[in-house]
Amino acid sequence: MYPKPLQQLIEQFKKLPSVGNKTAERYALQILNMSNESVQELTQALIDTKQLIKFCETCGNYTTDSYCEICEDDSRNRSLLCVVSTPKEILAIEKLGTYHGLYHVLGGLISPTNQVMPEDLAIESLIKRVKEKEIQEVILALSPTMEGETTAYYLAKKLEGLAEVTALAQGLPMGGNLEYVDDLTLTRSFNNRKKYDI
Amino acid sequence: MYPKPLQQLIEQFKKLPSVGNKTAERYALQILNMSNESVQELTQALIDTKQLIKFCETCGNYTTDSYCEICEDDSRNRSLLCVVSTPKEILAIEKLGTYHGLYHVLGGLISPTNQVMPEDLAIESLIKRVKEKEIQEVILALSPTMEGETTAYYLAKKLEGLAEVTALAQGLPMGGNLEYVDDLTLTRSFNNRKKYDI
Repeated sequence: MYPKPLQQLIEQFKKLPSVGNKTAERYALQILNMSNESVQELTQALIDTKQLIKFCETCGNYTTDSYCEICEDDSRNRSLLCVVSTPKEILAIEKLGTYHGLYHVLGGLISPTNQVMPEDLAIESLIKRVKEKEIQEVILALSPTMEGETTAYYLAKKLEGLAEVTALAQGLPMGGNLEYVDDLTLTRSFNNRKKYDI
Repeated sequence: MYPKPLQQLIEQFKKLPSVGNKTAERYALQILNMSNESVQELTQALIDTKQLIKFCETCGNYTTDSYCEICEDDSRNRSLLCVVSTPKEILAIEKLGTYHGLYHVLGGLISPTNQVMPEDLAIESLIKRVKEKEIQEVILALSPTMEGETTAYYLAKKLEGLAEVTALAQGLPMGGNLEYVDDLTLTRSFNNRKKYDI
């Protein structure tokens, strides 16, 4: 119904996550209202991202060079290695400003139902890194889901004897109401209970 | 925190309506996961839309030529002219498939608070069209808001004696619960009540 180029742009916007017809239409009409310079900036950013963003050869984080800023940063603690599923989680952890070790991105989680097997993930390079470098502790920062726990168990087995393997604590989320916490979280928070430090 | 090209793309996506940081981030990461061809298609659609989409010289609808498909369609009833605020509303009316006249896009609504005055809208060209063409009825299809009603009143005054001026009916929306309808709508639906046709 719209002229062809506009209709095509609407179809293109629908490729973005959770964008349906109405939203894609709003985006496309916004593009029409933008200045030529703004649209030029957007298309350039798309091209740049696709062309310049690579994965760090050491850890798998996003980078524009061969190695990412974190791997290149000499002030980081090189005896600590935090294992995450995607680069997005590095950002979440970095925002805290409390962790100063290195990272390793798996590129997913083991999930037989989705045909993701250990060999599809950056596990071999992780083992190699732990074996060859002076890493003392591997922190598994994986989601407490079926896939995350399967992957954590697999990695813990593989890394046995190579380094100390730890996992992020599981328990009650801050500000969460005990009444509404799910049973599994509550069970784990009981099992992992700690001595109260006064 | 992300490498510069990725961060720039996130900033660019934030220019789209109702897109905040989280959504822009999801879109940008999706772009990274897309094939080069897909990203190329998206950038091409952006460029095409900006370069090829124009406004119909007669009615103001979106078009890739000088005149839009509706104005060029000889089967349309040229004695009926429907006045809308934006081309988006043409699409909404066309979807019904019940109206077969022509359109005129104002390009907005009179709104002194937003500094939109009659001379900022395609009103002069509307008057000219009605005067010069064989238009018998002008249908005001404007939103029942302060701005829409102000514009409708202004147009009705301007078009007096040139053609029959009608406006879309106001009343209870279909499927709406009488209990929850606002007072103004209820008052209007009383004032505009019709003889019940059996």
